Amino acid sequence: MALTLGALVAELGGELHGDAALRIEGIAPLESAGPQQISFLSHPKYLPQLAHSRAGCVIVAPEQSAAAQARGACIVTPHPYLYFARLTQLWKRHLRAPQAQRVHPSAVIDPEAVLAEDVEIGPHCVVERGAHIGAGTRLRARVVVAEGCEIGARCLLHPGVVIGADGFGFAPAPDGSWVKIEQLGGVRIGDDVEIGANSCVDRGALEDTVIEHGVKIDNLVQIGHNVRIGAHTALAGCVGVAGSARIGAHCTIGGGAVVLGHLSLVDGVHVSAASVVTRSILKPGHYSGFFPIDDNADWEKNAVALRQLYRLRERLRALERSPRSP
Amino acid sequence: MALTLGALVAELGGELHGDAALRIEGIAPLESAGPQQISFLSHPKYLPQLAHSRAGCVIVAPEQSAAAQARGACIVTPHPYLYFARLTQLWKRHLRAPQAQRVHPSAVIDPEAVLAEDVEIGPHCVVERGAHIGAGTRLRARVVVAEGCEIGARCLLHPGVVIGADGFGFAPAPDGSWVKIEQLGGVRIGDDVEIGANSCVDRGALEDTVIEHGVKIDNLVQIGHNVRIGAHTALAGCVGVAGSARIGAHCTIGGGAVVLGHLSLVDGVHVSAASVVTRSILKPGHYSGFFPIDDNADWEKNAVALRQLYRLRERLRALERSPRSP
Amino acid sequence: MALTLGALVAELGGELHGDAALRIEGIAPLESAGPQQISFLSHPKYLPQLAHSRAGCVIVAPEQSAAAQARGACIVTPHPYLYFARLTQLWKRHLRAPQAQRVHPSAVIDPEAVLAEDVEIGPHCVVERGAHIGAGTRLRARVVVAEGCEIGARCLLHPGVVIGADGFGFAPAPDGSWVKIEQLGGVRIGDDVEIGANSCVDRGALEDTVIEHGVKIDNLVQIGHNVRIGAHTALAGCVGVAGSARIGAHCTIGGGAVVLGHLSLVDGVHVSAASVVTRSILKPGHYSGFFPIDDNADWEKNAVALRQLYRLRERLRALERSPRSP
Repeated sequence: MALTLGALVAELGGELHGDAALRIEGIAPLESAGPQQISFLSHPKYLPQLAHSRAGCVIVAPEQSAAAQARGACIVTPHPYLYFARLTQLWKRHLRAPQAQRVHPSAVIDPEAVLAEDVEIGPHCVVERGAHIGAGTRLRARVVVAEGCEIGARCLLHPGVVIGADGFGFAPAPDGSWVKIEQLGGVRIGDDVEIGANSCVDRGALEDTVIEHGVKIDNLVQIGHNVRIGAHTALAGCVGVAGSARIGAHCTIGGGAVVLGHLSLVDGVHVSAASVVTRSILKPGHYSGFFPIDDNADWEKNAVALRQLYRLRERLRALERSPRSP
Repeated sequence: MALTLGALVAELGGELHGDAALRIEGIAPLESAGPQQISFLSHPKYLPQLAHSRAGCVIVAPEQSAAAQARGACIVTPHPYLYFARLTQLWKRHLRAPQAQRVHPSAVIDPEAVLAEDVEIGPHCVVERGAHIGAGTRLRARVVVAEGCEIGARCLLHPGVVIGADGFGFAPAPDGSWVKIEQLGGVRIGDDVEIGANSCVDRGALEDTVIEHGVKIDNLVQIGHNVRIGAHTALAGCVGVAGSARIGAHCTIGGGAVVLGHLSLVDGVHVSAASVVTRSILKPGHYSGFFPIDDNADWEKNAVALRQLYRLRERLRALERSPRSP
Repeated sequence: MALTLGALVAELGGELHGDAALRIEGIAPLESAGPQQISFLSHPKYLPQLAHSRAGCVIVAPEQSAAAQARGACIVTPHPYLYFARLTQLWKRHLRAPQAQRVHPSAVIDPEAVLAEDVEIGPHCVVERGAHIGAGTRLRARVVVAEGCEIGARCLLHPGVVIGADGFGFAPAPDGSWVKIEQLGGVRIGDDVEIGANSCVDRGALEDTVIEHGVKIDNLVQIGHNVRIGAHTALAGCVGVAGSARIGAHCTIGGGAVVLGHLSLVDGVHVSAASVVTRSILKPGHYSGFFPIDDNADWEKNAVALRQLYRLRERLRALERSPRSP
């Protein structure tokens, strides 16, 4: 496939400097792009790589326009990375013929499930009774949407996603065994939500688990029952959110982080990878908590000392209080 | 669906104070329940919410009986949360008509697999040769039970569960490559076990991986080969248990925790979320080990200091030993 | 099934001391093996168990030959654990009749996918357009290999594996929403790679995600887009590798560890379980970083002190500088 720079700018906008007839055959990073490929400068810090790039055209911000033109063809736009994202979408549309068959015959769709228009359902999916799949939503291979769960419009659920398995709820019986609390709530997912491969969103105990519009969830993420995740929040891979936690809008949760149950995070909270959120966070900001990695021998010595830290503090206090001369 | 309070108490017991003819149409938390809904007081600390609740009836312990009766209808029972669990089960039974079709036609069941009576097997499940599925056990959509694995009675396996994939076993060859150790053991799962969506229990190397009666496992949990988990232990989401670890009965392992291989935990051990169990635990109790979360700037300063902690301790020792006067 | 010691040594080599006609009916650990079973001594530290073992035959290194012969039959070989691995493979070959049917009829194979000779494809697998499955590769039940992804020869992919789901790539739009970056790259997996149940390898954004020859990946592992993993590296369960990270050859990454994006690890790096790799590692060696587990009460006291650690360090400095006499 190939597109001329002119056709590309006609679809996506931006100010073209260079030959509109140049044929572009692919998208590539600055360092590997060749003369038939287009690249982009997402951040001024990559400016040194610009001069050496062999790319046929580079997408840049107005501030880099002069430097880019000195090198060759460029497209100037206020948000080069966003422009690149839209370019990948344009590329994908041209690359793939539209699928004729939209619900794969191996998918198991309950007759009482509701599929809106333009839905795509991949092989071996299961959509149970009373589930709703919104317009333009795509379920890749073997996604499960359990009974009564609702998915909004234009969502994308990757292979192996499970929406609406039972939340983890049990009452302890006097004999030490666990008695199941049937999970009578559902899951409601807004529009434009993407959920990565093998991730799970559990159904609520009494009320619904809610994922608001525009949330992006990576692979192997666990969302417990009754959780609510605010609009446009992004969760990286392997994150676990325990039951009844509430995460605000426009948050980011780094890979492998854990959010304990029944906590609230306000809008605009950013949690570093592998951190454990053990208390509500009431102020937007950046929060972290993981052990810094080290050479194993040093780590061992520090880990031993750490297990006596509060005693060290007491010894320090004692020294501070001790008279300095006899 | 609706049930009268009288019908409800006839099935579940408890002492009803109020109008037995009142129709209950749902179960809801204290703060959102309306006059046609029943709620519960699981802990005395929620007592202040009781007075303001609009619930048609509240399930309470004997100690809260007077306060509850002052407000309206109530059911008195020694274990309100357990009563609530049984109520959700009653609700679910009334809500769902029994399924006529118990083994979905898309499931692939080997002719040499054994299914006991009253088994339910969902769409796209795979039950391999020699596997046994106990009476009343339910496999939701696309569960895999591999060759020769045994599942007890009344278990519930959620979508995507994989029982009996190969354990992770390789011998290093002199050239630095890995030589596979075929996993010749199986998996034995007791009665009344529940396993969450996309969780995995690997088959043993030579002997079996064993999950005892009443164990509850949440979503995205990994159980390595040769592990043994004692009766009525509960594992929260995203837990990993490495090969040959032995966890006792009546333990709880918090979400995202990791238990290293070849360790033993006695009965009654409770591990906090995201903690790493690196040594055997021989005494029941509550164990923790994760880095406390903090504002990122403070965390960074503490993380830097932590990497020099054993040197700090040495400096403190030196100070303690230094003469206090010249 | 049974094999004589003579037949066994004829296939696998090694020096037999004992009766070649002895029939072996199984493989078992030293402590549980009986007279019809064969066992192995993988490390001299288990020597005390050797004398008491009832095993019919024991596989040992030359240094343990005398002790083993004093006890009974043995096979002497320079690498007993490797010999054991090959023995499990021999056992498995004898145990299982070869399958006549190699591509299960419930699998969905795109007509434009390419399957090499001797491929096995389990029930409910999905192999999309343009995917290549190398010779002798086995996909267990419900594995997904998405469009254009390539799997080498003799690989083994366990149930629920997802190869080639979209990487997690979005550009922020000025209104705070996320714009999808279509993932135009693929996944290339070398020969002799094994990938555990429900693990995921995402497709690259522009270029390919690459897993080199002989890599072994355990269950529930997440490999982000554009990652490259060097030959013969092993990743234990629940590991997460974020986008564009590069891990060298012959590395081991412990269970639950997280490798952040855009980092490089040289060959021969060993990361402890549950550690978070936040910077590139340029020197082979063993690295760790997780909070040591402790009794909860002690952990709490240390965690509180840890949040003031840099202040403690300042107080220590002040003491060191303070005059020792008035």
